Amino acid sequence: MKLPGHEEYETSSAHENVSVSAGEPDSDHGSGHSPSGSSETDSRELGISKDPLLFIQLNELLGWPQALEWRETGRWVLFEEKLEVSAGRWSAPHVPTLALPSLQKLRSLLAKGLVLLDCPAQNLLELVEQVIRVESLSPELRGQLQALLLQRPQHFIQTTDTWPCCGSIPPRKAFYNEGAPLREQNPLRQKLPPGAEAAAVLTGELGFLAQPLGAFVRLRDPVVLGTLTEVALPSRFFCLLLGPTMPGRGYHEMGRAAAVLLSDPQFQWSVRRASNLHDLLAALDAFLEEVTVLPPGRWDPTARILPPKCLPSQHKRSPWQKQEVKGLSGPCTARAEDRHGRGLHLPSPELQRTGRLFGGLVQDVSRKASWYSSDFLDALHPQCFSAVLYIYLATVTNAITFGGLLGDATDGAQGVLESFLGTSVAGAAFCLLAGQPLTILSSTGPVLVFERLLFSFSRDHSLDYLPFRLWVGIWVATFCLVLVATEASVLVRYFTRFTEEGFCALISLIFIYDALGKMMSLTHAYPIQRPGSPAYGCLCQYPGPEGNESQWATTKPKYRDDILSMDLGLVNASLLSPFECIQQGGQPRGPGCHTVPDIALFSLLLFLTSFLFATAFKHVKTSRIFPSMVRKVLSDFSSVLAILLGCGLDAFLGLATPKLMVPTEFKPTLSGRGWLVSPFGANPWWLSVAAALPALLLSILIFMDQQITAVILNRAEYKLQKGAGFHLDLFCVAVLILLTSTLGLPWCVSATVISLAHMDSLRRESSACAPGEPPSFLGIREQRLTGLVVFILTGISIFLAPVLKFIPMPVLYGIFLYMGVAALSSIQFVKRVQLLLMPAKHQPDLLLLRHVPLNRVHLFTAIQLACLGLLWIIKSTPAAIIFPLMLLGLAGVRKALEWVFSPQELLWLDELMPEEERSIPEKGLRPEHTFGGDESQESELMYQPKVPEINISVN
Amino acid sequence: MKLPGHEEYETSSAHENVSVSAGEPDSDHGSGHSPSGSSETDSRELGISKDPLLFIQLNELLGWPQALEWRETGRWVLFEEKLEVSAGRWSAPHVPTLALPSLQKLRSLLAKGLVLLDCPAQNLLELVEQVIRVESLSPELRGQLQALLLQRPQHFIQTTDTWPCCGSIPPRKAFYNEGAPLREQNPLRQKLPPGAEAAAVLTGELGFLAQPLGAFVRLRDPVVLGTLTEVALPSRFFCLLLGPTMPGRGYHEMGRAAAVLLSDPQFQWSVRRASNLHDLLAALDAFLEEVTVLPPGRWDPTARILPPKCLPSQHKRSPWQKQEVKGLSGPCTARAEDRHGRGLHLPSPELQRTGRLFGGLVQDVSRKASWYSSDFLDALHPQCFSAVLYIYLATVTNAITFGGLLGDATDGAQGVLESFLGTSVAGAAFCLLAGQPLTILSSTGPVLVFERLLFSFSRDHSLDYLPFRLWVGIWVATFCLVLVATEASVLVRYFTRFTEEGFCALISLIFIYDALGKMMSLTHAYPIQRPGSPAYGCLCQYPGPEGNESQWATTKPKYRDDILSMDLGLVNASLLSPFECIQQGGQPRGPGCHTVPDIALFSLLLFLTSFLFATAFKHVKTSRIFPSMVRKVLSDFSSVLAILLGCGLDAFLGLATPKLMVPTEFKPTLSGRGWLVSPFGANPWWLSVAAALPALLLSILIFMDQQITAVILNRAEYKLQKGAGFHLDLFCVAVLILLTSTLGLPWCVSATVISLAHMDSLRRESSACAPGEPPSFLGIREQRLTGLVVFILTGISIFLAPVLKFIPMPVLYGIFLYMGVAALSSIQFVKRVQLLLMPAKHQPDLLLLRHVPLNRVHLFTAIQLACLGLLWIIKSTPAAIIFPLMLLGLAGVRKALEWVFSPQELLWLDELMPEEERSIPEKGLRPEHTFGGDESQESELMYQPKVPEINISVN
Repeated sequence: MKLPGHEEYETSSAHENVSVSAGEPDSDHGSGHSPSGSSETDSRELGISKDPLLFIQLNELLGWPQALEWRETGRWVLFEEKLEVSAGRWSAPHVPTLALPSLQKLRSLLAKGLVLLDCPAQNLLELVEQVIRVESLSPELRGQLQALLLQRPQHFIQTTDTWPCCGSIPPRKAFYNEGAPLREQNPLRQKLPPGAEAAAVLTGELGFLAQPLGAFVRLRDPVVLGTLTEVALPSRFFCLLLGPTMPGRGYHEMGRAAAVLLSDPQFQWSVRRASNLHDLLAALDAFLEEVTVLPPGRWDPTARILPPKCLPSQHKRSPWQKQEVKGLSGPCTARAEDRHGRGLHLPSPELQRTGRLFGGLVQDVSRKASWYSSDFLDALHPQCFSAVLYIYLATVTNAITFGGLLGDATDGAQGVLESFLGTSVAGAAFCLLAGQPLTILSSTGPVLVFERLLFSFSRDHSLDYLPFRLWVGIWVATFCLVLVATEASVLVRYFTRFTEEGFCALISLIFIYDALGKMMSLTHAYPIQRPGSPAYGCLCQYPGPEGNESQWATTKPKYRDDILSMDLGLVNASLLSPFECIQQGGQPRGPGCHTVPDIALFSLLLFLTSFLFATAFKHVKTSRIFPSMVRKVLSDFSSVLAILLGCGLDAFLGLATPKLMVPTEFKPTLSGRGWLVSPFGANPWWLSVAAALPALLLSILIFMDQQITAVILNRAEYKLQKGAGFHLDLFCVAVLILLTSTLGLPWCVSATVISLAHMDSLRRESSACAPGEPPSFLGIREQRLTGLVVFILTGISIFLAPVLKFIPMPVLYGIFLYMGVAALSSIQFVKRVQLLLMPAKHQPDLLLLRHVPLNRVHLFTAIQLACLGLLWIIKSTPAAIIFPLMLLGLAGVRKALEWVFSPQELLWLDELMPEEERSIPEKGLRPEHTFGGDESQESELMYQPKVPEINISVN
Repeated sequence: MKLPGHEEYETSSAHENVSVSAGEPDSDHGSGHSPSGSSETDSRELGISKDPLLFIQLNELLGWPQALEWRETGRWVLFEEKLEVSAGRWSAPHVPTLALPSLQKLRSLLAKGLVLLDCPAQNLLELVEQVIRVESLSPELRGQLQALLLQRPQHFIQTTDTWPCCGSIPPRKAFYNEGAPLREQNPLRQKLPPGAEAAAVLTGELGFLAQPLGAFVRLRDPVVLGTLTEVALPSRFFCLLLGPTMPGRGYHEMGRAAAVLLSDPQFQWSVRRASNLHDLLAALDAFLEEVTVLPPGRWDPTARILPPKCLPSQHKRSPWQKQEVKGLSGPCTARAEDRHGRGLHLPSPELQRTGRLFGGLVQDVSRKASWYSSDFLDALHPQCFSAVLYIYLATVTNAITFGGLLGDATDGAQGVLESFLGTSVAGAAFCLLAGQPLTILSSTGPVLVFERLLFSFSRDHSLDYLPFRLWVGIWVATFCLVLVATEASVLVRYFTRFTEEGFCALISLIFIYDALGKMMSLTHAYPIQRPGSPAYGCLCQYPGPEGNESQWATTKPKYRDDILSMDLGLVNASLLSPFECIQQGGQPRGPGCHTVPDIALFSLLLFLTSFLFATAFKHVKTSRIFPSMVRKVLSDFSSVLAILLGCGLDAFLGLATPKLMVPTEFKPTLSGRGWLVSPFGANPWWLSVAAALPALLLSILIFMDQQITAVILNRAEYKLQKGAGFHLDLFCVAVLILLTSTLGLPWCVSATVISLAHMDSLRRESSACAPGEPPSFLGIREQRLTGLVVFILTGISIFLAPVLKFIPMPVLYGIFLYMGVAALSSIQFVKRVQLLLMPAKHQPDLLLLRHVPLNRVHLFTAIQLACLGLLWIIKSTPAAIIFPLMLLGLAGVRKALEWVFSPQELLWLDELMPEEERSIPEKGLRPEHTFGGDESQESELMYQPKVPEINISVN
């Protein structure tokens, strides 16, 4: 009955054949699930077939001596789930904890017990016969035992979705299953991948046994053993631990120990290949060698430990290490280079210089051309529909917010309509042609800041803005083409986190400052009516005796609640209200006479409401209340919901708050201009040459913004298959800037956050997952269609414009503030600023703080703060327009920091520049290891989880 | 050289003498610190003297072979602190984790190594000579080794306060100490209690050794061994683990294992009493028996586990259990009866019926009289000063808030001045005379609600309020005296958590509803000026052609920003502004013509600001930023700060918001009444009899409020020494209600939250504590002086009244809302309501959910919700005044629940009533143990931490 492949690894020693198990009957079914938690692709790349996933169930014999019955009291896949008997529910999955004696007792019981490897039993009866036959039991006992073992166990089947990786269904009904009919409905069955196997551990006290009885069986061919396990899976292992009554819960603990052992990937690997008892005990000893021990006086053994966010990597554990199966690592393992946020200093193939003019561009085009048809075919998946909806709403929100703000800042030269049109045209073209079609183009923060500066500059110098802007655009396109030709994108590796965070912090602060400033200016436009304030005043203009109107009397604050107390005849001339003034023959003049009250404070309320609700909705994601689906929707659409709420509140009160300016028909927001910008307008001819100077600055800004985003999108942890296209992307952006400048539309570059959200909504994950295990990330659906549809929809939304005029500006300012605050709080720099305020003992256990002295961390933070202060000062002077140059200067400051900090410190505080990387020998990065550095304690932590995650940012 | 007491336990076996160690020289110094973490009182009560605390230091030999030096790389008291070499700081204290092989290697090294128990060495040199002499080493090696061992080790002394239990100092400077001078400055020295001993573990690789060298020494007389340890403590243990170079960090791990062993209270206890190697190894084996094991595949051994909130209790561990030293338990151990919030069903001696008339009162008076002088002498401690300041501010805030609101609700009959005066008089008298002088009296929530209902009732029936109220007070005092006489206070045990939470939830909801309602009513008093709203309208009254004024034209909404565009001549008659109306010969009439704008919205802003800031300040306590002192102040004074902030904002804008009504001189707020209330006023004589009915209801309310608070204050976990005085307290309250009714001052009963805050500010804690260990609670400074001073200061504060009139009412409503929300969120009922909304898989791992099926939990919550709904409906009808009776009805509903739920379920969901307790056999409470219940896993969790803590509540 033995298959050839099977014999092969049964006869060979347990530690020498990895690839042999390819001959195993189940290996074809082992989809997507590795016992060590490694992802499908990892192991496929290595050509290693994996062992099937093991579901382990503990059946306990209860009710001795009157009413013996088997009851399921625990189950394991990766983590332990314990049956809460009185509550009738499975516990949350948790890290199993064992007592050492139970492991030792199990070992001695197995050592003298029955071990059947490759038992040929085909059903439960045959198996039970095999197990009881070998034992030196009396025939009568044997009969009793057989009847007992064939007794149907009571399973606890919870028909509610308790799987943490999927959407949740409220608990329906829980019951004990007396037979098989309900086993098919078990949600566990649908979650376990095809090919999964079961293991049953049977344990209990049996008073009529004289001595403990232990049996461990590995079935040659896994078969479904009747109703032994709650899910009808073919069983591979069977473990029986029975014995006379024992004080405490010895057999229960021993059974748990056996189950935990079987759930260990390493033990499982060994025991599947064990050829005799000795191999089995060796595997148990290997397990004992590697357990973590917590001292009894310092840790309560009954405390349940939640599953760690990522499983420890298995590649360091002994037998596998010997076999050098290093690729078979856990999901927590990522390359050390990815330790920091961006891994920019990873010399990715797309960022290597070819040395030829436009060499990079040519390479990019040829690389992407081969994927072009698949870029559309790969979009045929339902997930893409929801991605389109989500990204469309985000894009429209962005277009409204930035369009509204830019229109506000440029007197309507760049309004909401232009924002929609520009985003739509540029975005759609980019998605069709660019190197990284997952990128979402948008008019983003830094460019918005620059454009505002450009506008105020041109206004100060009485220039015709749009023609001037056209020339800037022409020059920018030219400069960008030069950058593409010279393959300048490879320089992006010199922008370390120091530069990026300086960039991000400055822009975030500008956002926050502007949002608050806009709100302050509203109180000037719609002054609060208070006693004594000038706005409250209203002058009463009397025609003088000579008939001229030079005599003015100020009406003073009045405060009178009750109309009945008013006696018009006795009003003092200095206390006149507007109509009293008129009654006395004067004429009221002044802002106070016509001020619209309540607008300023209501605007403030709208501003705070939209900010707080956007923040609150975003944070709903981490709350426990509501099903995860609801929380995801609330969190994903936080800005949209906050805007809708603000609009609703505004409509409810019906106050005349300032609203978004939108043209009612399809024409440029600025009245009197056509769609094509005239090349000169009222400007002198030489301005077209002078525009090269601001264009140079803008080119720097666009280059930084575009390429930093591109590098983030093409990070290794996103597992992109189709490669990046840095040069092609920049080329597309250059062409699109030329186009949008000609039409007077906003300039668009890659928007980091929306692009990351786009990628996130297209992530492929393993669908089946064990309780307590997070789903593993498989990759991204790389295609051009979702982006294209999003931008076509955005273009159609131009006709929504009449609806948009109901959006109050304070709501948009609130969203603006939220974006600034969220971006600021997502960067590590801010966390380090918080460290400045934190007493040492309260500081979190950051890896950074384990490796760099606190005063050095503070020094680095202080230098960053000083740079930021300097940038802010420059931004506030008339020289503000040169701030892109100053941002570039950050890279220079970073270079100078090499004189202050050691490469080791910079590695932890920032990341290394290309030269620094080369200058440090491989070993030299960890000098502390020579003096008491604890490699075993740190090596794991070096490989921090690198799960793709989205942080809101202004870009 | 041996002391007599010493010999005694050296010769006896390790497991049989606990009390012998009383003869130990250091036992006098062992103040407040037990190795098992038990509190001083616990062990004193049991008459057991404890072993001194042990500080363990790991010195590692580094730099082989060139530059050998000893360096401290780890230290232990309860938890492990690891030196982060490159960061130059100690890690946060964490639970040590070990690898099993290192423990086994240590065991075998010790087994064949040198074990010297009661070594008589008097200094390091003698010790080293002893250690190297016994070894089979060549003389030359011996010399090298001696020189090495006498070499001065490098200590890392951080002169910053890294101790979690104390206020923090920002890190100053960290350095390696080359000699002794700085050891005295070591902050660790000051934290370790007098009598603490040290243990040094020396470990490292020494290439010239042929085989491993292990030595374990227990010094007979602990002596300071030069600069071996970073703190100059007498060393008791010395452990040397050296050997030839080994792959990995074997010796480091072995040294850690030795240190962790020594830090285990059980091992330490045994090894102090061990008489030979066998005892030592037996202690090690006993340790191994009890370790918690985490499987390698599911737990990353390098993850640092934070110290648990409470240490596991040691009373179950084997040798101590044998000796039945059950009282020597950890701080986590509390009686099972205290598992729930209140432990009300604990039959405390004060709550037992004497059976005589006024028997309880007499007992209370005689019990408290004996403590009377100490009640003043015990107050002589600096801590009392800060307690006075804190409680004074809380009392004043309370008086302002409740006084302001009550004044508002009773048309000034009970104003702020009365609130101050009443609180001061009643509180001071209570502190002087009552049974529990830690109680702070105040006009609290439920009584406030009742008084408001009483006022609206008397207004509806045109009664003279204060005389009516006087009669209610007279009757309440009478009824309370009857309750005192009949010892009714013992009935308080029938109020389970079900009743208490229904009470608290109803009052909280009334608070929230009222706060929001008050704000809504402000928008009616100060309408928002919006187009189309009636308030915005202003009628233009023309004299008709016949001279009568019957013709009205409504001025319509106008919206005109620019005064220049106004053309008075062309205004349509239906669009007239007030002065336009006058100009055309009409007269403007209507609320809109004189409405004060901006008040409503600004009030709303003030309301939200004070609510949000009070909440935020309260939560600062759990933040990481700022030193703990600053956070404590911000959190403790959250209400005061929020009020100040609101006042500041109001003063800054200067709008005419509604303010607190305060009389400018010392006279009743209601104009035209004297301090003494006339007994009849305008009321008919029979009303003095009819007042008995509301008085009955109020008596129920006061009884419930007063006695529930009293039981909470006298909980066992507060370790009060001077006993309670339930009957005396109620007697005092009755007398004071009579007094305050006569003077027309607010009725005062015990305020739970302020009283708990008062106790909290007077808590005595162990000052010395090990890293990672929370300070242990020793008791409360029970005295009468702090309360007395607080109320005298409150009385003096009446003269602050002129300042109080600057407090805007919306700010007080905000604080009111905050109190309601905080009270609501502190009760378990609300947590169970949240469970209703939570998918099963996201539910927290509550003990409740482990033992009661979810649908039963939901049923219980639904019944509570239904009761609350019914109470709310009754409250909203004209029958509102009978709500105290309905609250009492909750106890009846709870009794009826016995038909629906099993006692086991009620035990977990609520707590048991006296009869139920008796009806359940001791064993029967845990029926699940017969079927798969896991006693070993649950018994610890049954004994949940019962640390006194304060939750804001309305009482």
